[in-house]
Amino acid sequence: MRTWLFQNNPVIVSTGTVGGPFEAKGKIAEDFDVLHEDLWLKEDSYEKAHKVLLEEASMRAAEKAGITKEHIQFFLGGDLINQITPTSFAAKTIGSAYLGLFGACSTSMEGLALAAFLVNHGGANCVMTGSSSHNAAVEKQFRYPTEYGSQKPPTAQWTVTGAGVSLIKDEGEGPIVTSATIGKVVDMGLTDPFNMGGAMAPAAVDTIETHLRERDIDSSYYDLIVTGDLGHIGRECALDLFKKHNLEVTEDQFQDCGLMIYREGQPVLAGGSGSGCSAVVVYGHLLNRMKKGEIKRMLVVATGALLSPLTYQQSETIPCIAHAVSIEYGGEKG
Amino acid sequence: MRTWLFQNNPVIVSTGTVGGPFEAKGKIAEDFDVLHEDLWLKEDSYEKAHKVLLEEASMRAAEKAGITKEHIQFFLGGDLINQITPTSFAAKTIGSAYLGLFGACSTSMEGLALAAFLVNHGGANCVMTGSSSHNAAVEKQFRYPTEYGSQKPPTAQWTVTGAGVSLIKDEGEGPIVTSATIGKVVDMGLTDPFNMGGAMAPAAVDTIETHLRERDIDSSYYDLIVTGDLGHIGRECALDLFKKHNLEVTEDQFQDCGLMIYREGQPVLAGGSGSGCSAVVVYGHLLNRMKKGEIKRMLVVATGALLSPLTYQQSETIPCIAHAVSIEYGGEKG
Repeated sequence: MRTWLFQNNPVIVSTGTVGGPFEAKGKIAEDFDVLHEDLWLKEDSYEKAHKVLLEEASMRAAEKAGITKEHIQFFLGGDLINQITPTSFAAKTIGSAYLGLFGACSTSMEGLALAAFLVNHGGANCVMTGSSSHNAAVEKQFRYPTEYGSQKPPTAQWTVTGAGVSLIKDEGEGPIVTSATIGKVVDMGLTDPFNMGGAMAPAAVDTIETHLRERDIDSSYYDLIVTGDLGHIGRECALDLFKKHNLEVTEDQFQDCGLMIYREGQPVLAGGSGSGCSAVVVYGHLLNRMKKGEIKRMLVVATGALLSPLTYQQSETIPCIAHAVSIEYGGEKG
Repeated sequence: MRTWLFQNNPVIVSTGTVGGPFEAKGKIAEDFDVLHEDLWLKEDSYEKAHKVLLEEASMRAAEKAGITKEHIQFFLGGDLINQITPTSFAAKTIGSAYLGLFGACSTSMEGLALAAFLVNHGGANCVMTGSSSHNAAVEKQFRYPTEYGSQKPPTAQWTVTGAGVSLIKDEGEGPIVTSATIGKVVDMGLTDPFNMGGAMAPAAVDTIETHLRERDIDSSYYDLIVTGDLGHIGRECALDLFKKHNLEVTEDQFQDCGLMIYREGQPVLAGGSGSGCSAVVVYGHLLNRMKKGEIKRMLVVATGALLSPLTYQQSETIPCIAHAVSIEYGGEKG
């Protein structure tokens, strides 16, 4: 078993989402708490701007819950930057006990799963969790500075500039975190860092299949099964794999955060990605839809490619992972 | 509260420790399960050798517990390499559900604290956790390739080549994980990456003080309070801080993993460090001493410096953290 059921109803009492200029032109701009006009956020490096995204999202989440940061007992988070420094530096500002995580773009749900586990079992009554990414900081580190203007293939994805944070409490009003399934590393031997979606799809399907089996539910239980950042290519791969595994997940029911965030016509190739992508889409757009009653039960499956520029240079394949968390609202419990 | 009490006695049923050639000449060589004669471990890169250290330690821990890897439900771990790839690649080999962590040299106890929490609360009955470092891989990434022979000041520490892993179960025979205190980020404004011990000492003292207060015990409760890798300089700073904070921790009672691993005369400057240091010293040497009855109650305080070469280049200070876990054996419970 790698699925946890949360019987004590850990609640997402508030969230904070911050985005950059490209996200401000996207499809779900109105779901952000803060949108910045430029990538620098008045800082003198992209990495410092990255940190500020997360700090702002944390402050917003605390404000909206009507608490000060002294009430936050634990902060769980991570990002894609070497040694996750934007998150650790933001953790200094947040000031609570801190557990640093690394799950690449799966970090959002790794954090939510652990936060809900801690709250469900009395390890804390107020936990903050979140993840973030910054397009220019991540591109510089993993590929080239964006100023080079180097070309990418259509299978590549666009790193989101944004931070999404949630505050989990043992009581209060809001969507309930009902269960989580922790992913295994799945590596199908792919090596192309410009096609992460394809590499990550099998990990997503493995986690979804395990989740449904271990919870003993049918895929129809969920109104929405939404992946972290598979993008166009990865989503197609996953839909193929569902058929092969005899999983009845419909095209309508199966969406991807990387395909929700930008508008048709924005030059994002196969879609959005980055540790901030699923965090801002879930904690902004999707929870807003839940509160409007449009979604009652969803399974968020954040996917991560656990490679580095160095493992790529050393000709290693891409190990992938996906962590799933179910969020329910407005049903029998909400 | 940032201290968890584990009422259901999560047990360390077995451990695995692997070291390199420099550790083989050290003071606690006989406490390792495996020692390698050279740094390459027959691999073609130091990072791949780093991964093998962890794989071997995991296999040893499983063997000693008489289980196959299929019984391991979760693996929690991390290291210092960008995007913690040695750990994630080893997680593929281990094959269980995987939660990637980043806490720099504090990762060993971040992992043990979470593993014990999961087992204590029924999230799993068999969890593996561990951390590792490789001197040449870490030096290359954080400073210079060792082949350059660049000089270091006497405040610098020597990165351990080693991996330490433990297997935590809900039943069985062995030392019990009784509580854990999660650290806050503490940053006293120091900026010298060649004096990590000094930077980390205040974080260690903050966590120890919080732990004693929240558990409502006196420091004399523990036979041993052992820090992750403060080294000579950091240990002196911590002893000074104990006095200032009116904490009665004696010099004998207060030891450091970074000062236990090597012999007098090995050129390690201020002592050992690295994510593998506290892992191999605790899971090898110290648990062996517990089993011999020499230590009944110890508090392991793994310290981490959460910087990166990039934050140093951007003139940032060094945020530090320390996570404490208490391990007890042979008292009323053991």
